[in-house]
Amino acid sequence: MEKFRFLLSGSGGQGVISLAVLLAEAASLEEGLTAVQSQAYGPEARGGATRSDVIISETPIFFPKVRQPNILVALTNEAAGKYLPLIRPGGLFLYDVDLVQPDGRVDARKVGLPMYAAVKETFGRAVAFNICVLGVLLALTGAVGPDAVRKRLKSNFDPAHHAANNRALDLGLDLAAPCPPYP
Amino acid sequence: MEKFRFLLSGSGGQGVISLAVLLAEAASLEEGLTAVQSQAYGPEARGGATRSDVIISETPIFFPKVRQPNILVALTNEAAGKYLPLIRPGGLFLYDVDLVQPDGRVDARKVGLPMYAAVKETFGRAVAFNICVLGVLLALTGAVGPDAVRKRLKSNFDPAHHAANNRALDLGLDLAAPCPPYP
Repeated sequence: MEKFRFLLSGSGGQGVISLAVLLAEAASLEEGLTAVQSQAYGPEARGGATRSDVIISETPIFFPKVRQPNILVALTNEAAGKYLPLIRPGGLFLYDVDLVQPDGRVDARKVGLPMYAAVKETFGRAVAFNICVLGVLLALTGAVGPDAVRKRLKSNFDPAHHAANNRALDLGLDLAAPCPPYP
Repeated sequence: MEKFRFLLSGSGGQGVISLAVLLAEAASLEEGLTAVQSQAYGPEARGGATRSDVIISETPIFFPKVRQPNILVALTNEAAGKYLPLIRPGGLFLYDVDLVQPDGRVDARKVGLPMYAAVKETFGRAVAFNICVLGVLLALTGAVGPDAVRKRLKSNFDPAHHAANNRALDLGLDLAAPCPPYP
């Protein structure tokens, strides 16, 4: 099994795909790991749900889709309800406390953080929310280093967005700092 | 076999991933088809090569990676050299005539068009080159309709880019108009 199997989910417009591409590129282009990133668009996508999978490994990856994530991110209640049943027992479930109210028991470590509120407070609106979520993921999992992501942010985005993107990444890193690492 | 198995390749910065996401979203969100889009980042990605796969089908898709594309797009010589050997016999090979000089024989229908020159002439620089390539693909394959892509362009991009994106799409549609359709 690959060490990091992310299932990232939310609604269209939350930047889930962009987050996934950044994570996969940071791992592969900056840290020499192997990464696969995919989106499957089925009937649920037409309801506004977005799902993107990222696998990061030190060895070749044969099947690009995540069947049992060990790290699940959900940014809407719909996404949480849909994908929580897939999580690996003992996995990590990251959600936004203001956007998601997880119900039911699940054999996973739940981490709820106010990422959406943090970017709203910092920027006055929901700017770079996905980058803040990515910062949390980096801090919790150590899957890739923050510097690798900063290089991709610089490479992929217009210079006008660099300051906000880096600030959002820092917000995420800071929010997650008190949480014990996974795994 | 799925009817449309696109392998889209070029170098980082040419917008190959964005093109792939637009194509998959237009098919799934606007036209009710099933689509899968994936990126694999191996050692070659660190050399600057980009590859993105899109499968569009009317039925469920079980393996998200394209093993034998029936439609190959290459926007650099490196990408053409690397991926042409994978093309399905009789498939469609689309390349930019100014960026790629295909050598060797290949059992595929070669279509070389001046997409890069067209956007440079229209915009003064290489704006929305990937959208122009997408316009060509739509005209050649009929995989999705132009209106489906226009809706995704409107939904995914800042209003400031709408006019240029739609103009680039039209450029691609016009460039491909004289070419017979595939398949």
